[in-house]
Amino acid sequence: MTRVIAKRRILRVREAGHSHRVDSLAAEEPLEIRLNGRPLTVTMRTPGDDFDLACGFLVSEGVVGAAGDVSTIRYCAGATVDGSNTYNVLDVRLAPGVPEPAGSLERNFYTTSSCGVCGKASLDAVRTVARWEVRDDPLTLSADVVAALPGRLREAQRVFDRTGGLHAAGLFTPGGEPLCVREDVGRHNAVDKLVGWALRADRLPLRESVLMVSGRASFELVQKAVMAGIPALAAVSAPSSLAVELAAESGLTLLGFVRGTSMNVYTGEHRLHDAA
Amino acid sequence: MTRVIAKRRILRVREAGHSHRVDSLAAEEPLEIRLNGRPLTVTMRTPGDDFDLACGFLVSEGVVGAAGDVSTIRYCAGATVDGSNTYNVLDVRLAPGVPEPAGSLERNFYTTSSCGVCGKASLDAVRTVARWEVRDDPLTLSADVVAALPGRLREAQRVFDRTGGLHAAGLFTPGGEPLCVREDVGRHNAVDKLVGWALRADRLPLRESVLMVSGRASFELVQKAVMAGIPALAAVSAPSSLAVELAAESGLTLLGFVRGTSMNVYTGEHRLHDAA
Repeated sequence: MTRVIAKRRILRVREAGHSHRVDSLAAEEPLEIRLNGRPLTVTMRTPGDDFDLACGFLVSEGVVGAAGDVSTIRYCAGATVDGSNTYNVLDVRLAPGVPEPAGSLERNFYTTSSCGVCGKASLDAVRTVARWEVRDDPLTLSADVVAALPGRLREAQRVFDRTGGLHAAGLFTPGGEPLCVREDVGRHNAVDKLVGWALRADRLPLRESVLMVSGRASFELVQKAVMAGIPALAAVSAPSSLAVELAAESGLTLLGFVRGTSMNVYTGEHRLHDAA
Repeated sequence: MTRVIAKRRILRVREAGHSHRVDSLAAEEPLEIRLNGRPLTVTMRTPGDDFDLACGFLVSEGVVGAAGDVSTIRYCAGATVDGSNTYNVLDVRLAPGVPEPAGSLERNFYTTSSCGVCGKASLDAVRTVARWEVRDDPLTLSADVVAALPGRLREAQRVFDRTGGLHAAGLFTPGGEPLCVREDVGRHNAVDKLVGWALRADRLPLRESVLMVSGRASFELVQKAVMAGIPALAAVSAPSSLAVELAAESGLTLLGFVRGTSMNVYTGEHRLHDAA
């Protein structure tokens, strides 16, 4: 927990005057994820829940889908010249019989389609790799429950009030009860930590749940929801065009600008039982 | 310009009632950047200013530093099976004598240090690759000018008011006059577009200027400022721990939570001439 916050002396400039004080900062450090001993990716993240982060990343990339797909995870000592353990390098070993991804994962799978780089190819790639269908998920939500999610996410955030620098992702039941909340300087990392928690608890696919995120809804976040079998994604801010396209094609309910009692329903409005 | 916005029919849920209407979304599409014909990276970006984006990315990675380092940039037709041009793949040719980066740029240079993956190694990597020193830049700023930057950035944003989905980055003079403003679904892309504009106008290093960003200040954004020779970075929200460390080590002035008449000065407070 200590590495989640860093302390630093700063100058506060206020109309009433200036003063020096000690401020709390959200910690950011690189994490290298190795797969079967081979470097796979490096992400800048907030330390903590690193094993979940690595597992969630592998779910998003279509490499694993159940707890049994992962054999062991460990931090690599000796990744530095002096042999010390920075806790910034970890290795995931796949269970016997689980195939390694073909070629390199250094570029995300959804941008390596052989038919060229475009939004349509990115959508096709997710459809090809997804293990579960979210289209027929029976989840229904009330607008009241959705409207309460940002507040509940904030309540569950342990670090935000001290640093203001972390994105949050929370998984909720149809009644709005929190199942898991994760934070990170990167919002894709917060979602990966959450999905990895679910994988390791063998709770995938995450049927009849809703994912609430503190920022905007990008293509990448919708992709992560689809790959984890989550049928609804709600965001405090705006979605992108490709996020909405992927949500529509996947049958995911996408909500944005969830603020106060208001929200915009971009796709899958049939799941809002009091808003039709 | 047409590809910057996408239109979509949505359901608006409001306390007063629900209604369908057509909404504007920020466009998101993948862009593959090739270097001398070799695929280098793929980023999800808002179409527009793509040549600037590619050039700014190459500045951030330490590959180029002057307009003359780039020979040609062109969109690749024939990148798809049917030979059509998606305008999502472009190739940058370096001028004769400009060395290609050693090995792969698929992982950012600051996470490939041979001494292991940690925050310190990331800082060292930037120091090694940076072409310019920002420490001795004579820039001074008044708190009043800084306080006005978020409003000026918002004024200069063409798309934000319609979609709410774009990050913005603006370059300003010490007096607060805008030099260049760029927008994107990804805030690192908005900064790359701005830095690439400066490279192509042969204005690097961007001495005596301040970069204002609409979101948080990550390590990556401070790195991009340092690599472009920008001596001050101001953000509407919080910086991360590693962002502050890199700013301190580089001699960059880092300001956060710039809201109303308030701001926090994390590093380089000597440049605020009325706040010392």
